[in-house]
Amino acid sequence: MKRICVDMDEVIADAVSEHLLRYNRDHEEKITLADLHGKWLWEVVALDRHPMLESYLRSEDFFSVLQVMPESQRVLRALQSRYEVFIATAAMEVPTSFEQKYRWLEKHFPFIPASHIVYCGDKGILRADYLIDDNPRQLRRFEGEGILFSSPHNVNVTGFRRVKDWPEVEQLFLS
Amino acid sequence: MKRICVDMDEVIADAVSEHLLRYNRDHEEKITLADLHGKWLWEVVALDRHPMLESYLRSEDFFSVLQVMPESQRVLRALQSRYEVFIATAAMEVPTSFEQKYRWLEKHFPFIPASHIVYCGDKGILRADYLIDDNPRQLRRFEGEGILFSSPHNVNVTGFRRVKDWPEVEQLFLS
Repeated sequence: MKRICVDMDEVIADAVSEHLLRYNRDHEEKITLADLHGKWLWEVVALDRHPMLESYLRSEDFFSVLQVMPESQRVLRALQSRYEVFIATAAMEVPTSFEQKYRWLEKHFPFIPASHIVYCGDKGILRADYLIDDNPRQLRRFEGEGILFSSPHNVNVTGFRRVKDWPEVEQLFLS
Repeated sequence: MKRICVDMDEVIADAVSEHLLRYNRDHEEKITLADLHGKWLWEVVALDRHPMLESYLRSEDFFSVLQVMPESQRVLRALQSRYEVFIATAAMEVPTSFEQKYRWLEKHFPFIPASHIVYCGDKGILRADYLIDDNPRQLRRFEGEGILFSSPHNVNVTGFRRVKDWPEVEQLFLS
């Protein structure tokens, strides 16, 4: 059975929308997802406001309230019938996220056993056939085939097979 | 550069001594490490006391107070000059341990970057050449070479290269 690793933020959890929401609310700005085409939020926000961006990620309730990406639950469950599915997130960058991410997965993806959740930093450590991730840096380190999950920041990235949403993941792996 | 993954509990952190200490103290028993030869603590303690054993692991301060295994700091740092070293712990079994384990590593192994820490459940997910672990179940799942780190419970286990302490790890990998 082939093994697929699936990233969390921007792939099954909509972190950037929550990040934008909090930033816009507190700074009376109106940055939209369209403004992020080809850029990370960090490249759009002025440097002196980066500590604030960082503080949202480190708050006690950021990762626990994220919306689930459309169709990700249905497709992941279907993938489990033909693949070994692991969730692999670079949680080490934000230690306050550990327990929140665990509870979020327990709530929204109860069919993923704890034994198939991985918190790491460098995804080169994963032994799997595929990694579905929005971050090209992680896909480059990964030694299997990297599948780029579309996100505003990566629209100009090339060199990977790309899926724009979960129905496309379904088509790629299950059709 | 070859890659070595290193387990935490019973390999760099002395969890079983702390577990014994708390259990003996609260139950006025005198179980020793010698009593654990060939057995997990769970096999020595009566079934009706397992919830108590479990509760120690889930307490807020269990993993943060563990003693460092002798020489592990010095040898791990030396290994970094010739190998890529990752810490890989099956933390998913105890979600309350996530932050404690992170702080413990930060305190005692500050030379291990966060990017080289992995929390997982099934160590078959690790892409590495070697895994040093006390748990034969994890070594069997791992696809590189498993090195069994001696611990009372595994004295009778065969089928792996065995190291009894950190000076032996040093000899195996650096001599």
